[in-house]
Amino acid sequence: MTDKLKLLEIFPNPKPERDYTVIHEAPEFTSLCPKTGQPDFATIRIEYIPDKFCIELKSLKFYLNSYRSDGIYFESVTNKILDDLAEICKPRFMRVTAKFNVRGGIGSVVEAEYKR
Amino acid sequence: MTDKLKLLEIFPNPKPERDYTVIHEAPEFTSLCPKTGQPDFATIRIEYIPDKFCIELKSLKFYLNSYRSDGIYFESVTNKILDDLAEICKPRFMRVTAKFNVRGGIGSVVEAEYKR
Amino acid sequence: MTDKLKLLEIFPNPKPERDYTVIHEAPEFTSLCPKTGQPDFATIRIEYIPDKFCIELKSLKFYLNSYRSDGIYFESVTNKILDDLAEICKPRFMRVTAKFNVRGGIGSVVEAEYKR
Amino acid sequence: MTDKLKLLEIFPNPKPERDYTVIHEAPEFTSLCPKTGQPDFATIRIEYIPDKFCIELKSLKFYLNSYRSDGIYFESVTNKILDDLAEICKPRFMRVTAKFNVRGGIGSVVEAEYKR
Amino acid sequence: MTDKLKLLEIFPNPKPERDYTVIHEAPEFTSLCPKTGQPDFATIRIEYIPDKFCIELKSLKFYLNSYRSDGIYFESVTNKILDDLAEICKPRFMRVTAKFNVRGGIGSVVEAEYKR
Amino acid sequence: MTDKLKLLEIFPNPKPERDYTVIHEAPEFTSLCPKTGQPDFATIRIEYIPDKFCIELKSLKFYLNSYRSDGIYFESVTNKILDDLAEICKPRFMRVTAKFNVRGGIGSVVEAEYKR
Amino acid sequence: MTDKLKLLEIFPNPKPERDYTVIHEAPEFTSLCPKTGQPDFATIRIEYIPDKFCIELKSLKFYLNSYRSDGIYFESVTNKILDDLAEICKPRFMRVTAKFNVRGGIGSVVEAEYKR
Amino acid sequence: MTDKLKLLEIFPNPKPERDYTVIHEAPEFTSLCPKTGQPDFATIRIEYIPDKFCIELKSLKFYLNSYRSDGIYFESVTNKILDDLAEICKPRFMRVTAKFNVRGGIGSVVEAEYKR
Amino acid sequence: MTDKLKLLEIFPNPKPERDYTVIHEAPEFTSLCPKTGQPDFATIRIEYIPDKFCIELKSLKFYLNSYRSDGIYFESVTNKILDDLAEICKPRFMRVTAKFNVRGGIGSVVEAEYKR
Amino acid sequence: MTDKLKLLEIFPNPKPERDYTVIHEAPEFTSLCPKTGQPDFATIRIEYIPDKFCIELKSLKFYLNSYRSDGIYFESVTNKILDDLAEICKPRFMRVTAKFNVRGGIGSVVEAEYKR
Repeated sequence: MTDKLKLLEIFPNPKPERDYTVIHEAPEFTSLCPKTGQPDFATIRIEYIPDKFCIELKSLKFYLNSYRSDGIYFESVTNKILDDLAEICKPRFMRVTAKFNVRGGIGSVVEAEYKR
Repeated sequence: MTDKLKLLEIFPNPKPERDYTVIHEAPEFTSLCPKTGQPDFATIRIEYIPDKFCIELKSLKFYLNSYRSDGIYFESVTNKILDDLAEICKPRFMRVTAKFNVRGGIGSVVEAEYKR
Repeated sequence: MTDKLKLLEIFPNPKPERDYTVIHEAPEFTSLCPKTGQPDFATIRIEYIPDKFCIELKSLKFYLNSYRSDGIYFESVTNKILDDLAEICKPRFMRVTAKFNVRGGIGSVVEAEYKR
Repeated sequence: MTDKLKLLEIFPNPKPERDYTVIHEAPEFTSLCPKTGQPDFATIRIEYIPDKFCIELKSLKFYLNSYRSDGIYFESVTNKILDDLAEICKPRFMRVTAKFNVRGGIGSVVEAEYKR
Repeated sequence: MTDKLKLLEIFPNPKPERDYTVIHEAPEFTSLCPKTGQPDFATIRIEYIPDKFCIELKSLKFYLNSYRSDGIYFESVTNKILDDLAEICKPRFMRVTAKFNVRGGIGSVVEAEYKR
Repeated sequence: MTDKLKLLEIFPNPKPERDYTVIHEAPEFTSLCPKTGQPDFATIRIEYIPDKFCIELKSLKFYLNSYRSDGIYFESVTNKILDDLAEICKPRFMRVTAKFNVRGGIGSVVEAEYKR
Repeated sequence: MTDKLKLLEIFPNPKPERDYTVIHEAPEFTSLCPKTGQPDFATIRIEYIPDKFCIELKSLKFYLNSYRSDGIYFESVTNKILDDLAEICKPRFMRVTAKFNVRGGIGSVVEAEYKR
Repeated sequence: MTDKLKLLEIFPNPKPERDYTVIHEAPEFTSLCPKTGQPDFATIRIEYIPDKFCIELKSLKFYLNSYRSDGIYFESVTNKILDDLAEICKPRFMRVTAKFNVRGGIGSVVEAEYKR
Repeated sequence: MTDKLKLLEIFPNPKPERDYTVIHEAPEFTSLCPKTGQPDFATIRIEYIPDKFCIELKSLKFYLNSYRSDGIYFESVTNKILDDLAEICKPRFMRVTAKFNVRGGIGSVVEAEYKR
Repeated sequence: MTDKLKLLEIFPNPKPERDYTVIHEAPEFTSLCPKTGQPDFATIRIEYIPDKFCIELKSLKFYLNSYRSDGIYFESVTNKILDDLAEICKPRFMRVTAKFNVRGGIGSVVEAEYKR
């Protein structure tokens, strides 16, 4: 799975002297349940304060799409997305919130934060 | 009622070194009114910060379904779900919120927290 | 299952000389899946033009609650409710619409009509 | 109950040569359940095509408020409001729709029409 | 009140060979109650099929604003707006719908049509 | 009015060792305006942390219904409900929020808190 | 404009020994743009903690209606309403929020607070 | 692609003597754009009047999931789903409505019907 | 303006033997007011039954974007889009609905149909 | 781009002795993507506490419209609007929030603050 990181691109923060917030919300995330192989669906929300770099939007789309055939649990995928994005752009702060569709009559949300 | 605990399964937290939040929302909870025997309906929301273990989603469904024929009051069932889930997964924090459907023209919410 | 009919009560239509419409909507219907034994949930909507009799509301609640432990398919239960209610109150017209909660990522609606 | 009619006032239709529609929607209707004495609540919607007379709005409010201490069934009160209003203003067409709040987990609507 | 007509402007229909529909919805209409002098508020919706002329939008705003200090009943103002607009642009069809804010706990709608 | 207190019933808190929150929301409250005698309507929301006792839900309904024929101002009724409920169940905390329907084009909310 | 103050009436706070909050929300405020003379529309929200006096609701309606023919800017009218209401009832706290309808494709909100 | 048909299962219509309607709505459909290879997302709504057979719900889920790696256009996939489902259950009537997520700032819906 | 037509591309209808409906909804349409030069904004909805050809989605986006610097009235632009699209794909039926943002406190909709 | 500043006008704060908040929300912002030249759309929200000056609303509209043909990134345009508005009116506090429409299935928000 480490090749996913290569999909992500960054660009220089146009206003590094100011703390400001960027939010990307991707409602079309899908992966597979590692137990059953059935598809899972989620909305991924990424909020961060850029430091030297911002995340390029189109590369973020390709990165998120790369999970389409991966079998991975809710708790794991949320933490992995946070780890990958934080590694690539070294933000001052980052929070990833994944809101998964109802499975077995239960909807789930996982939310994790990164602080430098 | 202590057999309910046996329905719950846990799995190792994939990221124990980080404090992160998991929310499960189950809108299909139903039990019985201990006075009248008539059915009650609620949405149960469980929010927790896992420590060593996470709650397995399918077993949570079976656990919540097990109340279907139990006569139990709003205030009691909310506290009991919190006690059971906290006992089984020993979270760093847990909050259970039960939102009950209108009875006699009045809707009710009960919310309880567990801190280690 | 024929004992269900005994739960239903009727009362004389207070305005039989006029065609008018009565709608009852019950969002707390629950039965069991005959395959898996897991609970199903639905909103049952009953629309009818009374002839000589109206359906008594409290008895309708008890009638619908009586499905709580029955294993029965979506298509069957909708047609059965229509058959039972039409038999008991002999309406000029009746339509039953059952809107079932999502199962396996798919929500379902079944709608059937009775005409004299 | 025949004194209720005296509460209603009418005024001459300012455009009798045209068929046009007037709708009044009153979300604050309340009466009593004749069985239990407990309060019922409804939204009353009155739609009509005036002929020679229109219904005066303030008198309609007093008329609807006059049911506050009456014990009367859903089906009866809807038909009675239609009969009273049609008698007082002789419309070309009138429809009364009463949407009652949930009782015993079931919401109800009664709708009746008057045609000349 | 006949000076109101002078406020309205028209322009040639750019596609008179086709029957098509134009809708203008003005949520900021206000006039006065002729009885109490207190302000009334409404959303005015005008739907029409233009023939030779369309109604100019800015002039429509000035026309509707001209009622701000007029004391006039719900039923009258709706019919008058229809009469004025139909006279000025001679449409193939026109419908005016006025949705008035709640007064005395009752909301009102008046709807009138013009056909050539 | 002191007889209202007798309508309220309490039961022992099933989990007095934990601070948890109970909310009851009653959208069908109605009283009378002391000036005009016309009906007022409100949604009453009661939030409290029980100490030794919880408020019994059905008795709360009867208590709230008892205001149906009382003439009382918005500010007074909200404070009186808070005083009565706090006296009867001696909570660790209580907040009463009354949201009144629009009167004269203005909606009103009154909110008061009790702390031990 | 100082005559507006005379429109406002107050009454004694029925519970001065408690800090509690009153909110009035008036969605039918209208004044004129001082530049163009065209009407402006707003929802005015008044939140306060009464001290010795409460604001009488009907007089508040007349006070707000008195701006109907005044030309006044968004920022000025919000501060003036706050100054007038605070002067008349000397509250422990007051906040006025004015939410103006879209003008030139832009909606505006002005919010000001008074503390004793 | 003809192997998709084998995924679908049917069961005998429990009420063939009555024309009634079944609706299944699947908000988690995803396929690939045949041009770009990027994922598309849609809600598929299937409405039909069963004749001798009904469509089994779980097999419908597997059938719809089988498009996950197929490159296929909006117009083609909607008509193909209709053709496949109609072939397998021979309904008296069927309508398939596919509502696709926004692409290039434009959302799309395709709707097709089958009549016997 | 005739060069706009060259932006549109078509492709063969994959199911010409069936009458089915395609809807494209574009909420990001913008042009200029021919009087003031100020920008207008609209949602353009295109519904059609294809005959031999379908409209290619990306070319539709470029076609709609081409109005960005054009000064054109609401009524004209709606009819022109209908004329252009009908000319390029010769549908069995087409309806264009343009819903324009509020201007001067008034929102507007223009809807036109093409039949072969 | 420095000519944009000349479009902005200010006027004296009518209540400089009080800290109060002004919010302008402009849902019709559009610029171009610097990479593809395709249009971007956003809602721009400006919240500030005026010091000596307020921003004139009509000039703000012209200022925001001036970005219509500019190619500029999400992160840059948000910070530039904040810098320009803060420079022109020297507020005690200012926050600019730009909520961009979905691109490639991802919606974005950028939010930046200025403190004196």
